[in-house]
Amino acid sequence: MRIMLVGFGVVSQSFAEILHSQSSELARDYGIRPRVVAAVDSAGAAIDPSGLDVQLALRSKRESKSLSGLGENVYTEGKPASEVIREVDCEVVVEATPSELTRGEPGLTHVRTAMKEGRHVICVNKGPLALAMPALMELATHNEIMFKFSGTVGGGTPVLDLAKKCLEGCSIRSIKGILNGTCNYILTKMAAESVEMKEALAEAQKLGYAEADPANDIEGFDSACKLVITSNYVMGTSLSIRDVDIRGITEVTMDSVASAKSQGNALKLVGLVGDGAKVAPEEVPLTHPLNVSGTFNAVTFDTDPAGEITLVGKGAGGRETASSVLRDLIEIRKDFRR
Amino acid sequence: MRIMLVGFGVVSQSFAEILHSQSSELARDYGIRPRVVAAVDSAGAAIDPSGLDVQLALRSKRESKSLSGLGENVYTEGKPASEVIREVDCEVVVEATPSELTRGEPGLTHVRTAMKEGRHVICVNKGPLALAMPALMELATHNEIMFKFSGTVGGGTPVLDLAKKCLEGCSIRSIKGILNGTCNYILTKMAAESVEMKEALAEAQKLGYAEADPANDIEGFDSACKLVITSNYVMGTSLSIRDVDIRGITEVTMDSVASAKSQGNALKLVGLVGDGAKVAPEEVPLTHPLNVSGTFNAVTFDTDPAGEITLVGKGAGGRETASSVLRDLIEIRKDFRR
Repeated sequence: MRIMLVGFGVVSQSFAEILHSQSSELARDYGIRPRVVAAVDSAGAAIDPSGLDVQLALRSKRESKSLSGLGENVYTEGKPASEVIREVDCEVVVEATPSELTRGEPGLTHVRTAMKEGRHVICVNKGPLALAMPALMELATHNEIMFKFSGTVGGGTPVLDLAKKCLEGCSIRSIKGILNGTCNYILTKMAAESVEMKEALAEAQKLGYAEADPANDIEGFDSACKLVITSNYVMGTSLSIRDVDIRGITEVTMDSVASAKSQGNALKLVGLVGDGAKVAPEEVPLTHPLNVSGTFNAVTFDTDPAGEITLVGKGAGGRETASSVLRDLIEIRKDFRR
Repeated sequence: MRIMLVGFGVVSQSFAEILHSQSSELARDYGIRPRVVAAVDSAGAAIDPSGLDVQLALRSKRESKSLSGLGENVYTEGKPASEVIREVDCEVVVEATPSELTRGEPGLTHVRTAMKEGRHVICVNKGPLALAMPALMELATHNEIMFKFSGTVGGGTPVLDLAKKCLEGCSIRSIKGILNGTCNYILTKMAAESVEMKEALAEAQKLGYAEADPANDIEGFDSACKLVITSNYVMGTSLSIRDVDIRGITEVTMDSVASAKSQGNALKLVGLVGDGAKVAPEEVPLTHPLNVSGTFNAVTFDTDPAGEITLVGKGAGGRETASSVLRDLIEIRKDFRR
């Protein structure tokens, strides 16, 4: 199975590591014999149709922050991903470049190009899906390829699969989720230690839970992306992030957190799809399963007749998210008809 | 699809109702056209190869607590289930008689008989599985039939399916669960209202959360059954309930609950499979997703590399559990080769 990694950040690196370390299990349990034929990052592309030396690629990236350590026979500086996707033959393209939520680029072009070339696509990048999921689903069907994106929601926690594979015969009336670990960490800390947002955010940044520019998280855009993807996949809506009414946690004060607590509630950044789609700070009863602590994510599906079903797990992390990419790869392998 | 209902209690009745009320969706979405050809309870059997009048059966059961209202052409008093299973042709037998944990009877005989007759089996009864799951799995394989039992763990919450269908490529290192809603209700109430076990149990009985004889619940046997089934199904063990070290909540005092709380923990009846299998009262951090309130059930799978994944939902209820039976039926339909 020839795999192309577009974007070679934390998730792609963890995924490459897992492919390498679990190669005998993957062959035995699923008949998967992976070969990474190309890895591309923003600086250039490493290509080897007979399979890259993954260990060397990881070391090069670690030591020099680039793939140049693979040598000039393999590495070409400045070669753009779309060109590589068109030129190098493979079965699966993993799109894992950073999410960009205005135009979805360059991920959107990568995904489209891969689909037009007839490659199966595993997308970890929320941008293309938040902006153009219905069109991409159609393009995938038209090109008869599989389009998977488990890692975009919940990191390694199988939120999308749970709804799709385990709730057959149930109707899902609404989806309610704590979808951003950074915001949840901040709100949990504000409640537990009675500190202001600024202090909690600084701590989140120190611990690596929040980025230097935390806007996408704390302004609710990341939650909105995940809500859109989950709703479209699970409830069959055709939302884009522009359809979501978004309010982040930037205006949450210590007082509002304390006031919620005094009412037996926790103030959480909640994404909700039911009658409309919105992301906003909302009070959740302390005893409700959605009231998860720290960086946890949680999603509640309100179903008939199975009632409320909540899935809780880590919402981020390179290795965790890579496990979603692996699940997608196994799914693709099962339907392999090449 | 000809279906036989063995045991016609709350779950079977809810299932029959769902089959009736959702018949057009079932035909459209899954190609399922169900016909209940027999329903058997401890008093007798109603049989009609062309399909029972389900509405009439439900009304008869409601009004006279028996199926006799279906009339003497259909109903035979005292006719035992095993005889009906052998005599009446059908594709699927639903075993939903009460759980019995010493010999697993009469459920075990029903399940074995159905399998030997080449019927697919959906078992909602924990007894046969807690005592003889490995042998039953083998018998199912030998007879080339499907054996499903989603409703035995978590009511309508898809605990078994989550682990089996959504965690591929992950290894599961341990399973930890709050598996009995009655115990969890009692312990939650003891902690929240500082009352003794006796008072909390009486309240649970008043609300219908606990039976008149609560031994199976509060002595931990029900939790142990669910632990055995989950472990065998998910981790490939060959446990029976006799292999589980079981301690219920009967000796839990208001003091031990309060002491846990003062340490930032909640005292819960926890089932654990990892290094051995046990059920015992154990402290769970208040911030852990397993710390669910009231009658909720929760199961945490500790996986590599996706981390801890917790599923929370209602652990009981007729309609909820019937939704698991329906999921099993849909699964069977998908693999139908008759």
